[in-house]
Amino acid sequence: MTTLVPEAIERGRTLAVPALRAAVDRLHPRLRRVVAYHRGWTDAEGTPLPGGGGKLVRPALALLSAEAAGAAVEVGLPGAVAVELVHDFSLLHDDLMDGDTERRHRPTAWTVFGADGAILAGDALLGLATQVLLEVEGEPGRRAAIMLGAGVQDLVRGQAEDLYFETRNDVTVADTLTMEDGKTGALLSCSAAIGAVLAGGRTELVDGLAEFGSRLGTAFQLVDDLLGIWGDPAVTGKPVLSDLRSRKKSVPVVVALDAGGADADELRTFLASSGDASESELHHIARLVERAGGREWTTAEADRQLDECAKLIASLSLPPLVETELLALARFVTERDR
Amino acid sequence: MTTLVPEAIERGRTLAVPALRAAVDRLHPRLRRVVAYHRGWTDAEGTPLPGGGGKLVRPALALLSAEAAGAAVEVGLPGAVAVELVHDFSLLHDDLMDGDTERRHRPTAWTVFGADGAILAGDALLGLATQVLLEVEGEPGRRAAIMLGAGVQDLVRGQAEDLYFETRNDVTVADTLTMEDGKTGALLSCSAAIGAVLAGGRTELVDGLAEFGSRLGTAFQLVDDLLGIWGDPAVTGKPVLSDLRSRKKSVPVVVALDAGGADADELRTFLASSGDASESELHHIARLVERAGGREWTTAEADRQLDECAKLIASLSLPPLVETELLALARFVTERDR
Repeated sequence: MTTLVPEAIERGRTLAVPALRAAVDRLHPRLRRVVAYHRGWTDAEGTPLPGGGGKLVRPALALLSAEAAGAAVEVGLPGAVAVELVHDFSLLHDDLMDGDTERRHRPTAWTVFGADGAILAGDALLGLATQVLLEVEGEPGRRAAIMLGAGVQDLVRGQAEDLYFETRNDVTVADTLTMEDGKTGALLSCSAAIGAVLAGGRTELVDGLAEFGSRLGTAFQLVDDLLGIWGDPAVTGKPVLSDLRSRKKSVPVVVALDAGGADADELRTFLASSGDASESELHHIARLVERAGGREWTTAEADRQLDECAKLIASLSLPPLVETELLALARFVTERDR
Repeated sequence: MTTLVPEAIERGRTLAVPALRAAVDRLHPRLRRVVAYHRGWTDAEGTPLPGGGGKLVRPALALLSAEAAGAAVEVGLPGAVAVELVHDFSLLHDDLMDGDTERRHRPTAWTVFGADGAILAGDALLGLATQVLLEVEGEPGRRAAIMLGAGVQDLVRGQAEDLYFETRNDVTVADTLTMEDGKTGALLSCSAAIGAVLAGGRTELVDGLAEFGSRLGTAFQLVDDLLGIWGDPAVTGKPVLSDLRSRKKSVPVVVALDAGGADADELRTFLASSGDASESELHHIARLVERAGGREWTTAEADRQLDECAKLIASLSLPPLVETELLALARFVTERDR
């Protein structure tokens, strides 16, 4: 199914892209080139590409967040830039750590510019994100930077859990959800609240928006886990059955393991094996995860988190247009043709 | 020759180590373990080691910097912690990028915990450093975090130059000094001024201390370049002739290249070659760099930068004890048995 692109996404792109470009222009030319390639602004040789640059979901959230606090949309702009820079930092480092060779249908940055290029460009972006926020005078800038710093720690903690889960055999569904909350929820939470912080919004509003972003992150990640097994490569930009191929203990897999029985045993044996699995073997494992209820549970949980998002938004007495846009955005980022 | 350990270093250790440990304790347990190993607090299994933790030159500078502005030494403590965390971040990532397998006579962190562990632990430390500063209420914390952010960008830029220099044949002595100013000068500059910023010191003082730190960084790096060729492995903790072994275009090497003639040609041919060079070949190259004046020029330039440091300090009308300690610290970090 196809969802209309929400107004907030279009506007986010229009406002955030020039500000993002201005921020990235501050980097060392060699690192700027890595980032411009990674963002899809240029090819590997530095030649500009038409379009590109991703959906900019996080900037769109940050801008709406400022409006949620009654401020002009521009007040959220430093926040919009900062969260997207942190998102890029984490993708550059994560693709390298996970050994992923493809993103958005293109070779990942580390495969083009080497591990050094990806590490350094990520480091530069992480530092730059905080700089952009601290250029906002006074207390709002400081508070926004504190919020982003906490988000970065949660993000890194989530990635640390993820890497170490691969070496563990006792990971529960709750562990996996906590890990995914760090990896995806932390930055979406920050994105949804940072505009309100920059606007000097009241604590209950900031906290409510942060909780909305966190649940949206969980829903988003659950959908990502579904797509990692049952997604169409033409849509996801990842190889078919990619999460099974890499033996990732994503939520559907862990749910299936928890179900016990012969299917769980076979799945466990597959996860403990190594080497390239054939496509027919991977399809068999996917059917097995589905039969054990992994797909159904994950879909239901994603829907439940989205319902909670809607309830939270309704409780915050936001300007009606902002409420509508936040809900449209939440639906947009969790649809993705699952 | 042996230099007495300055009072400021001893005091820096006493004050900064507990604060550093408290900061590192905030990290994910798996990342905490990487950092504790890297700092020499524990072995690879997490068993505590006696002593360890380095000289803590940067924290000592940050603490003196607060006193230079007339504040109590504790005012500089968040700065002392932050600059050391950034230093560790950069070592964790640089050792990996440079492929260095040994530091302070021990295997580097990435060789023990993998590239993932080193990347993530570094990321966490970079974020944590800013968090520590922003926990200082109000404008001084914000200004200190802005200064650290600028220092981090210079640091990353210096490392980017360094990596790309290896692929270039037209690097001048000036290029190399600029690069080293980024890699070493930026963080020492920040260390020397951040305490004064936290103390709300006047602009001329902050700027003067920053310039002192920058020149100290250059002197320090020049000495490091000398040790990288002529240093005693028992003292440096690096393999003998390590910079020649890795064909690094350090200052003495670039000076020798610039001198021209047959020696420069032979040196250029060596740098363009690949594969492991024999120890006798490396000794021959070291003699050649010395004959071309690389050692003498670098030694004189280090001394000149130290003289400038002393002049700067004398011009700032500091409390006499602080002036004495800053000079002792400058001598201490640039001696290292060269």
